[in-house]
Amino acid sequence: GADNDLYINQAVVFIEDAIQYRSINHRMDSKSLWLYRWYYSRICQCILSLTITIILALAFIESPSSLTVTSDVRYRLPAWNPPCGLTESIELLCFLVFVIDVSVKSYLVGWEEFWKNKWLMAYILTLIVSLTDWVVSLSFFCTETVRIRRILRPFFLLQNSSMMKKTLKSINSTLPEMASVVLLLAVHLSLFTMFAMLLFARTKDGQQDKEWVGYFRNLPDSLTSLLVLLTTANNPDVMIPAYSKNRAYSIFFILFTVLGNLFLMNLLTAIIYNQFRGYLLKSVQSSLFRRRLGIRAAFEVLSSLKETPANAEQSYVSVGALLQVLQKVEMDSRCKQAITRSLKICSSDQLSAAQFQKLFEELDKDAIKQHPPSPEYRSYCMQKVQFAFGHPYFGYLGNVVALANIISICVVLVMDADKQPSERDDFFLGAINCFFILYYLLEMFLKILAMGLKRYLSYPSNRFDGLLTAILLVLEVATFAEYGFPHPGWRPEFMGLLSLWDMVRLVNMLIVFRFLRIIPNMKFMALVVTTLLDLVKNLRAFAGILVVVFYAFAITGIMLFKGAVVPMGNVRYVGNKLNATWVFCNSCNLMVVVVLSFKEKCDFMSSVTFRLRLFAAYFIYLLSVNLICRWAKIYFVAWWLISSVIWVNLFVALLLENFIHKWDRRCHRESLSDIEYQRTVELMFRDVLEEPTEEELMEKLYQHPHLHLCR
Amino acid sequence: GADNDLYINQAVVFIEDAIQYRSINHRMDSKSLWLYRWYYSRICQCILSLTITIILALAFIESPSSLTVTSDVRYRLPAWNPPCGLTESIELLCFLVFVIDVSVKSYLVGWEEFWKNKWLMAYILTLIVSLTDWVVSLSFFCTETVRIRRILRPFFLLQNSSMMKKTLKSINSTLPEMASVVLLLAVHLSLFTMFAMLLFARTKDGQQDKEWVGYFRNLPDSLTSLLVLLTTANNPDVMIPAYSKNRAYSIFFILFTVLGNLFLMNLLTAIIYNQFRGYLLKSVQSSLFRRRLGIRAAFEVLSSLKETPANAEQSYVSVGALLQVLQKVEMDSRCKQAITRSLKICSSDQLSAAQFQKLFEELDKDAIKQHPPSPEYRSYCMQKVQFAFGHPYFGYLGNVVALANIISICVVLVMDADKQPSERDDFFLGAINCFFILYYLLEMFLKILAMGLKRYLSYPSNRFDGLLTAILLVLEVATFAEYGFPHPGWRPEFMGLLSLWDMVRLVNMLIVFRFLRIIPNMKFMALVVTTLLDLVKNLRAFAGILVVVFYAFAITGIMLFKGAVVPMGNVRYVGNKLNATWVFCNSCNLMVVVVLSFKEKCDFMSSVTFRLRLFAAYFIYLLSVNLICRWAKIYFVAWWLISSVIWVNLFVALLLENFIHKWDRRCHRESLSDIEYQRTVELMFRDVLEEPTEEELMEKLYQHPHLHLCR
Repeated sequence: GADNDLYINQAVVFIEDAIQYRSINHRMDSKSLWLYRWYYSRICQCILSLTITIILALAFIESPSSLTVTSDVRYRLPAWNPPCGLTESIELLCFLVFVIDVSVKSYLVGWEEFWKNKWLMAYILTLIVSLTDWVVSLSFFCTETVRIRRILRPFFLLQNSSMMKKTLKSINSTLPEMASVVLLLAVHLSLFTMFAMLLFARTKDGQQDKEWVGYFRNLPDSLTSLLVLLTTANNPDVMIPAYSKNRAYSIFFILFTVLGNLFLMNLLTAIIYNQFRGYLLKSVQSSLFRRRLGIRAAFEVLSSLKETPANAEQSYVSVGALLQVLQKVEMDSRCKQAITRSLKICSSDQLSAAQFQKLFEELDKDAIKQHPPSPEYRSYCMQKVQFAFGHPYFGYLGNVVALANIISICVVLVMDADKQPSERDDFFLGAINCFFILYYLLEMFLKILAMGLKRYLSYPSNRFDGLLTAILLVLEVATFAEYGFPHPGWRPEFMGLLSLWDMVRLVNMLIVFRFLRIIPNMKFMALVVTTLLDLVKNLRAFAGILVVVFYAFAITGIMLFKGAVVPMGNVRYVGNKLNATWVFCNSCNLMVVVVLSFKEKCDFMSSVTFRLRLFAAYFIYLLSVNLICRWAKIYFVAWWLISSVIWVNLFVALLLENFIHKWDRRCHRESLSDIEYQRTVELMFRDVLEEPTEEELMEKLYQHPHLHLCR
Repeated sequence: GADNDLYINQAVVFIEDAIQYRSINHRMDSKSLWLYRWYYSRICQCILSLTITIILALAFIESPSSLTVTSDVRYRLPAWNPPCGLTESIELLCFLVFVIDVSVKSYLVGWEEFWKNKWLMAYILTLIVSLTDWVVSLSFFCTETVRIRRILRPFFLLQNSSMMKKTLKSINSTLPEMASVVLLLAVHLSLFTMFAMLLFARTKDGQQDKEWVGYFRNLPDSLTSLLVLLTTANNPDVMIPAYSKNRAYSIFFILFTVLGNLFLMNLLTAIIYNQFRGYLLKSVQSSLFRRRLGIRAAFEVLSSLKETPANAEQSYVSVGALLQVLQKVEMDSRCKQAITRSLKICSSDQLSAAQFQKLFEELDKDAIKQHPPSPEYRSYCMQKVQFAFGHPYFGYLGNVVALANIISICVVLVMDADKQPSERDDFFLGAINCFFILYYLLEMFLKILAMGLKRYLSYPSNRFDGLLTAILLVLEVATFAEYGFPHPGWRPEFMGLLSLWDMVRLVNMLIVFRFLRIIPNMKFMALVVTTLLDLVKNLRAFAGILVVVFYAFAITGIMLFKGAVVPMGNVRYVGNKLNATWVFCNSCNLMVVVVLSFKEKCDFMSSVTFRLRLFAAYFIYLLSVNLICRWAKIYFVAWWLISSVIWVNLFVALLLENFIHKWDRRCHRESLSDIEYQRTVELMFRDVLEEPTEEELMEKLYQHPHLHLCR
């Protein structure tokens, strides 16, 4: 009846929760279940992700930011300025999606849980603030300068990922200890600043106080100088004036650098690593618990279905009910088949809790990839051909040819390095390309012949090769159509960013990456590379948080420094430096910001003024720059602390964790096959994971706010 | 008789070996024993260390190096040039000491062991080469330029320290894995270099190929640009020309930096840390083994002394013999007393092996420091005074006053920052100093009154305070004698590096370091600081190896770049840059070299030529500079790899090891007393150390080349 249907549906949802490692604490009545399945359906989640992407991408076209091809203020065209109301209406649509999202989520967890859930509350708060800001913005006809909602945008990305929330919690728990070290750093910095100010005081002889003039003029200057020294950016320059006066002054700088840079900064690494040592394991462990809990909940629900004797000591689930549930569950078809198969083999009609769990252990297993067999040829000749070109030595030959390709390109490059473009003869390079592309084509066809198309395509390295070869062929044919066949004195045009001819050469370079295939053959290299690949997987949450932080910083930067730099005349020397700032002010380029924070700081101002003096007044320089400079300092220091100090250390910690775990495993087992299967984090930790006990699971189940199991 | 004397002497030497963690594999006849004890006597070892120090220090006065006060080539006086034969004769004396050293060592280990000992052979070889070079040098009357023996000098430091040899072995075992990563880095670098050369090719439009002109002109240039990018030294500059042409070019640089800098470089850290994880434990473990082995050997020797029944199942040692041995052994008097005391308490007259070992466990214990008691005053008033000023709150008051001192100095500094020296009024600072010094004096006397002089001096922090207060007092009195008492408009002279008045201010700064005493009161800070202190102890071997490497590099640098830079006219802008080089070429300043290798490379040449164009030809520039530049590049890259990449990573590894061990321990036990005692490495690892088994010890003893125990 209806009750049975409800139970079946509940079990389906529980199993889906288990598969996706979701929490099971949500409403369990049939309407809510329908809503829940709809909310977590692929299409709804896709719409949500798309909305988040769109709202984040809006910054690239909104008014103060202007993404143009060149970043040079002198040459760039005015960026497209969307009319007022265009981005705003897109924004409103996104907000509507978020409102629906938050209301569905809140409804599904129920009122009691809602009040405990700080993320949901923050979500609602963010939406309210954003909508208010949106209304204000429209009522000013988009002319207001401060738009708070832009800084809040990355929150939508953050709250949508449970991994990111978990990582943020971990980072949060490290903060007190990091704060201690940062405090130590601050004490270190301030003590040394005072020392420096006493040591490099102003003297009556103007010749003698270069150090004072340059770096220790007043308290903010001294603090900045030493802070920059901590980043090693001004490392020799800051000490040279004093050092050239008396060598003994270097002791001060050496002491400062050794204490601050070598000890305190590395201590930060140690602390963060220490905190994150168990991070991966803990997160995998909690995922495992969620999976087991979901399965167990499904079992409990199904066991209360019917006909089981109420006072039986153990509860059972009938095979039929489970099959019914399995049909409705959305899961990997391979897993579903495997479970159904083992259900059919199963001797008894009733499943105990342990058997039930065991069935679903299939989920934890990775697919074992089997390459399709090679075709079997009848003719003796074809068998010989198959043997010859299916042999690993043929692959090695391919690598050797690729190496020859790279060497020949290298030789051509070195020979052409100092020639004028008009003197250059591209015949040689063209002929080489022609030859190698023919070889690659031949290699591909022979391999397909030997292995059969299916087996050939089942190897990722072959797919990569084949794709590159095809691209090369297309480009080469296009080149010949455009410029004719290579002959002595052949000279294709260079134009724009990448002409057709450039493209050919670049794809030629790509093919030499095939050479990297030899890496898995070297034992240690294989370890290193698999560690790196694992790392990329485990880093997604960290990268997400970095994106969030970066986005907020970039938007703040755009708001703070908008209009700080104006395009000026045709002064080439100043151009570069100002470009850098302009770039920073206008786009979201990680490198440039990091780089600026390391090397430019406010010093670029002084270098600009120095050059101004040299080239006389070619342009009007804004006074506001100086005012902005203070803000810029604080802004850059904050960015340096977050991006360079904290994030890089987190990265190192994760890398250490991954590598050392891998290394330990390598020492335990030596089988090569491991490398192929055990890519997922869960599998990496399988030996050390603890299975949750029955008591823990049941304890958690009885605490479920919407499911009332009878003890 | 004589036999018994020999046995006693052997036992004495074995126990001394155990105390010093020395190997026991040396000759055991009585003359050799006498020689052995003489060789390891304090005076002989002192002479040896002194000789090593002298021969290393020679570089500072030898001809191409010239240590002068200023490093500025324009102002420095010609350095003192020792006459030919002076340093050479000192060198000869040192060599003679080394010859004696190596012959005694070789004799003591015996012929068989000698052939197995590569360090000894290398020692002899080094001496032969050095002496030959010395003869050549004298026959040229010191005019030859290449002196190989100078580069070989640090070997003498290396071979004299067993810790350094052990560390070197560890580093050596890490090399293959480091080599893999360095190989990966090289592949990464070369692939990207080719990419860059294809991407930033020369174009016909001279305006468009700024990137090519600046950084990718030919293969060596491109390689250098990207290598420097790997050190992040030219991080924004290298990409700015291309970036300002088209933003998409930044992808290339971002990819390169992320792969190379973030992944591969940090992987190196991970690998080194992984290799060094067990390093400290292993080294402490082997020290423990040596100690137990020495004790056991002493036991075996003593047990074969006399009167023990030959066919007894267990061997014994008489208490009397041990007391006789103890009298002769040179050891810490506290340990000796403790052992004698427990021997007297001992009930039986015979000691078994286990009892014997147990007696000597006293050696492993650290002295428990007891502060002498406070004096007991009769008068009630004095008791009150004692209570008041012996109370911790009085110490806190001192800290608060120190904080007030630092703040007042800070305020004065900020106020005086922009004033001309002639306008400045030092009355305020003088008055402040006067007041605070009086307070510090008062504090010291009150503390001595409350605690008694002995107890006061037993605390290191008090000794530090007292010393600083005394220095301050002397300087202050001297200042007043020189400049009179402070009054409005008081203005002491500034002169030279540090005038008397500057000194007073600096010592004033030192006293605020007392404020750091509060650190042990904060739990986490205490952990951090003790980790750092431990690290300094454990780092000695590493620091020694760094000194060795650095010395060799500095000497090579002096030889390679001698005469590369000549003093020139009064050009101020060029001065700084060239000074830096000059400094590097002439002295052994770590910072400057590291710094140069990071930031200057051969680029400083281009900047010099740029400035030359600006200021027109004020001086003649040597052509040889360009030739030297190639060598300099290789030299700097090698130095960067060793100092920055390998050594810094080793440092991080050690820090991680130390910190994590400490952290684990802190979680196990929470007693504060730990922090006071367990400073030595042995004690830190006590819980995890494994005692060597009886079989291992006996096995090792039977392998002794000169001691023939009957089984």
